[in-house]
Amino acid sequence: MDLWFSENHTENIKLSIKVDKQLFSGDSKYQRIDIFESKEFGRFLTLDGIMMLTEKDEFIYHEMITHTAFAVNPNIKKILVIGAGDGGVVRELVKYKHIEHIDLVEIDEMVVEVCKKFMTTTSVALNNDKLTIFYQDGLKFIRKCQQKYDLIIVDSTDPLGPGEVLFTREFYGNCAKALTDEGILLNQHESPFYALDAAAMQKAHKRISEEFPIGLVYQAHIPTYPSGHWLFGFASKTLHPLKDLKADIWNNFNIQTKYYNTDLHSGSFALPNYVKELLKNAEQK
Amino acid sequence: MDLWFSENHTENIKLSIKVDKQLFSGDSKYQRIDIFESKEFGRFLTLDGIMMLTEKDEFIYHEMITHTAFAVNPNIKKILVIGAGDGGVVRELVKYKHIEHIDLVEIDEMVVEVCKKFMTTTSVALNNDKLTIFYQDGLKFIRKCQQKYDLIIVDSTDPLGPGEVLFTREFYGNCAKALTDEGILLNQHESPFYALDAAAMQKAHKRISEEFPIGLVYQAHIPTYPSGHWLFGFASKTLHPLKDLKADIWNNFNIQTKYYNTDLHSGSFALPNYVKELLKNAEQK
Repeated sequence: MDLWFSENHTENIKLSIKVDKQLFSGDSKYQRIDIFESKEFGRFLTLDGIMMLTEKDEFIYHEMITHTAFAVNPNIKKILVIGAGDGGVVRELVKYKHIEHIDLVEIDEMVVEVCKKFMTTTSVALNNDKLTIFYQDGLKFIRKCQQKYDLIIVDSTDPLGPGEVLFTREFYGNCAKALTDEGILLNQHESPFYALDAAAMQKAHKRISEEFPIGLVYQAHIPTYPSGHWLFGFASKTLHPLKDLKADIWNNFNIQTKYYNTDLHSGSFALPNYVKELLKNAEQK
Repeated sequence: MDLWFSENHTENIKLSIKVDKQLFSGDSKYQRIDIFESKEFGRFLTLDGIMMLTEKDEFIYHEMITHTAFAVNPNIKKILVIGAGDGGVVRELVKYKHIEHIDLVEIDEMVVEVCKKFMTTTSVALNNDKLTIFYQDGLKFIRKCQQKYDLIIVDSTDPLGPGEVLFTREFYGNCAKALTDEGILLNQHESPFYALDAAAMQKAHKRISEEFPIGLVYQAHIPTYPSGHWLFGFASKTLHPLKDLKADIWNNFNIQTKYYNTDLHSGSFALPNYVKELLKNAEQK
């Protein structure tokens, strides 16, 4: 069987993964959802043909978008997760025994159902007692929240389709309102490399910078995302990801990770010159 | 015109770049050499069908495999470069006005000729007065050298074909002999992500660790290499890449870079847990 899934990273660049078989294909109210089985990456989930996660490299994304917050504010107790219906973020969050509650707002119930069935490595904690799932639009949900969360994680798709509202100024402003004073916003921040991704990154950074006194960007290697060079945002009203890093406390949690560690935490905020320049230009726009 | 260059990163993974046209194709004594023109990556060079460099992202590789040494030993004067017939390493090296001499040992004269003609962004300094080019086998050349160089840069292909000898224990042992006490060896160190690349990385690390008291690995984002997660090696008899970092001196050189900076220098040595584990396992083998 010679079956390949391909994703165009730009009009002129294509990454292809040899597929063993397609396990699921369905159309929800919002998007087309597919699950494939592959030799190199295990199972993987695509939404509207765009790679969301693979069993082989999802640990990188999920560790980087969760632990980075806890190493700066180890007392995080109340958490809002937007998107993330695959469960990967929740799996990482419940490693912290002291957290009190997670609200997960996923617009598409079918993503959760499909991941519960097919992506069991990520969906493993979606029945956790501390978790409440709301099948709602993230922007509408957050409009009603005030000083409520210690951590908001925005695990959005690209700023196209249902994920688009999660890149607006109104959304980030509402995140700021919904966070406690020592609260942290972590978001998937697109990529600096290809032009369209870089434009989305600049837009997100400009808007976050307008709403938060501290808004920095950090990076990771994610092989199945365009260019493999992926960024995350760290924003807060009071906490700085490097000056307020509490490496010893985090290491005492003794949490098992395959990618994240506190040295890498600091290292991931050291960005290449061209990325720093893109961010600076965005701030001045 | 719908023309695509594809490279299999593994049997099951393929990266494809839309090509405008092929500018050159030839067979040297050692390998097949091709140059393509593309919209997304500009011109790019392949050897035996494997991506060597593109105009768009070569700055990342070439900056990371040169400046990292000068920020630790700013007094580097005598340099040996092995491979690197495209000229990119030399272009970065001649930014340091105080260097005295560069010996470049490239096995394949046709690579240099072709790059002089087609890859002018990298080959721009190949006529520099301080440069001597030897068209020889790197291993044979280095066998005769003793305490001669402050810096050796091994810009090898993968450990297949003509690049294979540059991954042997004999080669690294000869590098150690050829370096001064404060000398530094920087080498392209493959990738940790896909199994075959990771095996090559482990082999290189084991051998370098056996020959040098200090042998560390650092990382960069290189979109056109397999997985985009690429590693470099830093080895020395006396100098540690972090403890002996001379950031102020390097910054006073006022060298223009698009990727490298001294914060990123430190950050690039902070590796993901799974990479640290692969390296540790290699040392214990």
